Parts: sequence; C-alpha cells; structure tokens
Amino acid sequence: MTPPSGEPRIHAWAAAVPPFDVAAAECAQRRQDQLTKPQGSLGQLEALVVRIAGMTGHERPCADRRVVAVFAADHGVAAEGVSAYPATVTGQMLGALARGEAAVAILAEAANARLLVVDVGVVGKPTDHPRVLNRQIRSGTASFVAGPAMTRRQAMAAMDVGIDVVEAALAEGLDLLALGEVGIGNTTAAAAITACLLGVPPEMAVGRGTGVDDAGLGRKRLAVARALAANRPDPADPIGVLAAVGGLELAALVGAIVRAAAARIPVVLDGFVVGAAALLATTLCPTARSFLIAAHRSPEPGHQAILGALGLGPLLDLGLRLGEGSGAALALPLIGAALATHDRMATFAEAGVDAAVPS
Amino acid sequence: MTPPSGEPRIHAWAAAVPPFDVAAAECAQRRQDQLTKPQGSLGQLEALVVRIAGMTGHERPCADRRVVAVFAADHGVAAEGVSAYPATVTGQMLGALARGEAAVAILAEAANARLLVVDVGVVGKPTDHPRVLNRQIRSGTASFVAGPAMTRRQAMAAMDVGIDVVEAALAEGLDLLALGEVGIGNTTAAAAITACLLGVPPEMAVGRGTGVDDAGLGRKRLAVARALAANRPDPADPIGVLAAVGGLELAALVGAIVRAAAARIPVVLDGFVVGAAALLATTLCPTARSFLIAAHRSPEPGHQAILGALGLGPLLDLGLRLGEGSGAALALPLIGAALATHDRMATFAEAGVDAAVPS
Repeated sequence: MTPPSGEPRIHAWAAAVPPFDVAAAECAQRRQDQLTKPQGSLGQLEALVVRIAGMTGHERPCADRRVVAVFAADHGVAAEGVSAYPATVTGQMLGALARGEAAVAILAEAANARLLVVDVGVVGKPTDHPRVLNRQIRSGTASFVAGPAMTRRQAMAAMDVGIDVVEAALAEGLDLLALGEVGIGNTTAAAAITACLLGVPPEMAVGRGTGVDDAGLGRKRLAVARALAANRPDPADPIGVLAAVGGLELAALVGAIVRAAAARIPVVLDGFVVGAAALLATTLCPTARSFLIAAHRSPEPGHQAILGALGLGPLLDLGLRLGEGSGAALALPLIGAALATHDRMATFAEAGVDAAVPS
Repeated sequence: MTPPSGEPRIHAWAAAVPPFDVAAAECAQRRQDQLTKPQGSLGQLEALVVRIAGMTGHERPCADRRVVAVFAADHGVAAEGVSAYPATVTGQMLGALARGEAAVAILAEAANARLLVVDVGVVGKPTDHPRVLNRQIRSGTASFVAGPAMTRRQAMAAMDVGIDVVEAALAEGLDLLALGEVGIGNTTAAAAITACLLGVPPEMAVGRGTGVDDAGLGRKRLAVARALAANRPDPADPIGVLAAVGGLELAALVGAIVRAAAARIPVVLDGFVVGAAALLATTLCPTARSFLIAAHRSPEPGHQAILGALGLGPLLDLGLRLGEGSGAALALPLIGAALATHDRMATFAEAGVDAAVPS
C-alpha cells in the first residue's frame, strides 16, 4: 500500500486508515454464539475477539506473528527533577533491552513476540547493538517548561520513524503489534499531553510515574503547568502538541499506531505513555481508535482519563507501572489464547453437544 | 514422599503439607528489589512471584512443567432444573475435551500445559479415549435436595482420585497445577458448599452458573436451601459436607489440592466450583491455603465470598463464567511470564544501571 505522495506521510497514512469492518465482526459474533460454550461465558475475551475480527476484516483472525516495538528517547524536562531516576538511565535501559535483560525483552520472548528496540533520540553515544535500531532525530528533547520540546519538523520526522518500523515489521509478517517506550521523564510529557487534549487540570493528569517522591511530584505538577502556560499547545493540532510538550518516542508511537491501523493490524497499548500517544493518534485520525486494545490499567491517574476518552476497557489490572511495553507484552498471550479458542473450538453442531435449552 | 500408612490418604497428605517457606519468600523479595525496575513496578506480579517462592521453597521458582487437570462428574441435582443445560452435556463435554475441541483444551495448549481429563463419575457409557482417565466412583451423585449426594466412603474414594492424578503428574514432572471441572449442576453443589462453610444465606451463594434463567435461578436457590435443610452438613467436617452436598469432581479437586500442596506445587484455582473445593481443602488442611493462586474473579456471587475467605486476590477479572479450568489455564502464561522476569532480569549491579536516587 502506497500513500498519496506529496503530503507528509503521517497525514497520508491517517487518511488511509480503513473503517472498522462491521460485517467481519458480525460474522465473528455469529461464530462465537455457535461455539460449545454458554453464550458470553468467555466474558471480555468474546468482545475482544469480535473487535479484532472487525479490525482485521477476518472472521477468524490470526495472532501468530507478534511484535513488541519499544521506542526510546530522552526528555529535557528530566532536568526539572520530575523522575526518581537520572536521565542517564534511559541509555542504560536501552542497553538492557539490547541484551534481553529488561523486563519487556523477557516478556516479549515469553509471548513468542519479536522485540524491536528503536532509539529515536537517547542522549549519549548510540547503543551499538544489532538489536537496537538507531534512528535518532535529535539528542533528547529540550525541556518544555519554557518553550517547545522540539520543532514541528522533528516531530514529523520522529513520526516517520514509527511508520518505518511498522512497515519493516509488516514486511517480515505482523498480526499483532504491542507498543512500549523507555524515556526518563516521559510520564511528565504524557501528563502534559493528557492535560492538553482532555482539558483536565495538571494535578489530575500527573502521577508518580516510576515512583517519584512527594517533592518530585510537586515539581512534576509544576513542570506540566509551566509547559502548558509557556507553549499554549492547541489540542486540535496533535502535531503541534507533540512538538510543544511531547517527546521523540511519543511521536514515533503516534506514527506506529496510525501506520498499523492503516494496515488493519490490532495495536496493543501499554500504559500511560503509550496511551497518551494513542490520544494524539486518534485526534489526528479518529478512525484509528477502532484498532486499539488496552492491555492494562495503569495506576497513573491520567491513564484512567485516557482509557475513558478512548472508550477502552483494559484486559489486565495488576498495578503495573513499569512501562517499557511490559503490560502490552503480558497481554499478548491472553489475546492469542482468546483468538485460539475462537478459531479452534468446535461448534455445537460439529461436536454433537446439546445447546442451551429453556430450563 | 510416602504418607503414614493406616489412615485415610487425604488425612495423611493433609498432615504432610509443609508451612509456607518464609525464608525463600524473603530471598525472592530481596531479589525483586534488586532487579532493573522501580521497586514494586510489576505490581501484583511481584507479590505473586514472592508467594510462589514461599510455596516452592525456591528463590527463583520454575514454572516450565505445567498441568491443567480437569475433573468431570454428573450431579443428581441437575434433575431439579438448576442448569441451562441438560445433564447429558457433561458427557458430551468430556468428549469435546478428549478431542481437544473444548475451550480449556485449547487454552492449555496455548499455555504449554499438559491437559489431564479425569472422569470421576459421568453418567452414561465411559468415554473411550486415551486422553480421558476413567476413574468413575459412581454414575453421578444422587440429588442432594432430600438426602446425601453420596456416601462418605465414596467421597474419600473420589478424593483419592485427585491424589492419584497429582501423583502421576508429579512423576512426569510438575511445577504448576491448574485445576478445572466439568459437571452440569455443579455450581449448585458449589453454592451449597459455600453457604454451608461460610454461613452465607443460599440466595447470596447462588448465581446463574453458565446462564440459567430467572425461573432456573429460583429453582437453584430452592435446591440449595432444601439440600442444607435436609442434610444439615457440619461445616467443621468437610468430608461430611462433600458427601452431603458436594460432587465427585469436587471431592477429586479437594484431593488434588491437598496432594499438590504437600508437594509444594502452586495450585492455580479456576472459578467458583474449584474455589468451593479449595474452601473444603483449606478447612481440612488450613496450611494448604498458602499454595493457592486465584486465577480470576468469576461473576458468581459465591466466588467473591470464597476469595474473601481464602484471602486471595485474582489475577484476571474478565467476566469468565465458562468453568472447565478456562480461567486457570488463561492465567498460566501470566504466571510463567512473571516468574521469567524474576529469574532472568538483570539486577542493577549486573546491568550497570543506576538505581533510584532521592530526587
């Protein structure tokens, strides 16, 4: 599929996102109702399977070829003391991802998923490892408390990284895409995006991220308030919001979501940061919403607001607040298992089992 | 491990259940706190891993050898119109399990678990299939609305079936045991057990099971009330409760839980029916409680009471009400993934990543 030329790729792909395939979803629902189980007895998993049928356009969707894509970048706002960790940890986590020692690397392997790790702008010497794709747009963003995090052009270039990563994954085979991120300071960016797009006050969008203390939480709230006051991002202009108070990995995630949706690939969202990217992606391209699956509910207060705005119910609620894509990777086997029952269970007719009778 | 001879096997194994290994759990907690993630950021999964360490006595427990054991039996109370399905469906589901077409068969395979299917007393011609172990104690139970479901001796023999199945699984290799059941009418038995053991009124212990209508729900409540009035089971005598208002598969589940706990094997409980068996098992053997993991929260009202009484928080909450062990099988990959992160993530020292600093 080639987008119309001459316009930015993100807009071309946004225009190419197809509608939800209602007919395929209805076929899947009919099949569900004929399988040898009481109707509705697989609960949320039945609704999930039917949604995936509508996403993919297949009555019996496949989830064999799974990818976990993790985008990493640094954030100038980390210098404001908004995180429990120093900014150097982003690069160190990239190394741990490359060596397969980070949580999401292990979870991706447990989920039979290929792990893709992409450096969109980590500060310092690039990680020289075959498992890390170096696509640095700039060396971290500027602190957005007094001006924009990056230029609009840089935000577009970072979105193109996400588009490229999904296109490469599609070329190798892709049925299900889980998204994650690494970037010290990025829950501050996610909070600023959430506050801007959903119109919630900064104190309601800001949480403790990976575990900042009370003083850090205060600095984080202040940073978000200052960022919104200094940049005045327009919630109707998601690319402007990205440039003003976003991040490079957030922009890449937006590109990945839109490109995957254009290819009818279900996108499994991780927690708060990926959720903020999904808010931006669906502002840019409302039809992309149909292709999103919420892996889990994060304890971050802003995530709850995002799930509500996206109209998504999470599959897991385990108090995960690690990021990296860990929640999304954890949800993949559940999604795969749901699709396997849908594909392989016998129907009442096939099995010679009596269906429910009026009792 | 051989139980002392001369007494019923269930009592011998109950006496052999070891205490929770606090030292191993503490070692696991220390390891968790050194892994390259913010402390506590894997939420409930961290507590789960620490509990499994205490169950198994290993700082880094293994979950490679997984078994899903499904016990099937018929219930005389089905004749009271308490289910949306006719009693013949139990035998038909046994056939679907044998052919690998039932939900739990597919979910067990997706979880890399061996599926064991055991007929403890299904009415009709025994299923002749290599995947079904025929250990029928009697051809279904008697309806317990006017007298006991079975004799005490039969309940003991059915418990021995569960013990034998776990012993066979141990001989082939077992790290994690998921339990399930099939038996039309068995949520009525589970409700009677729950009402008796927890002292809740029948109307609070009875739910719609696999989907009975309002009239059936009324009959189900009446059946439980009649069963308790006619049998007056003593909540301090779990074997008496099993014989009075239980079921053959419920008894086998009790034996399996106690035997697995005696071998320090974590037991993954499915929903309401397996939960009722766990209530009985922990009444018989309170130390067995430490070895239980609640896979999911069932919409059955009685299950909520059981989880509260057992002090267990469920991993999943997906509205599953299929039974069979489907929820337990779905939770296995999640548990395996949690243990994999615990075993294989690098520590901060190993990875050269800066730990959290006072911000």
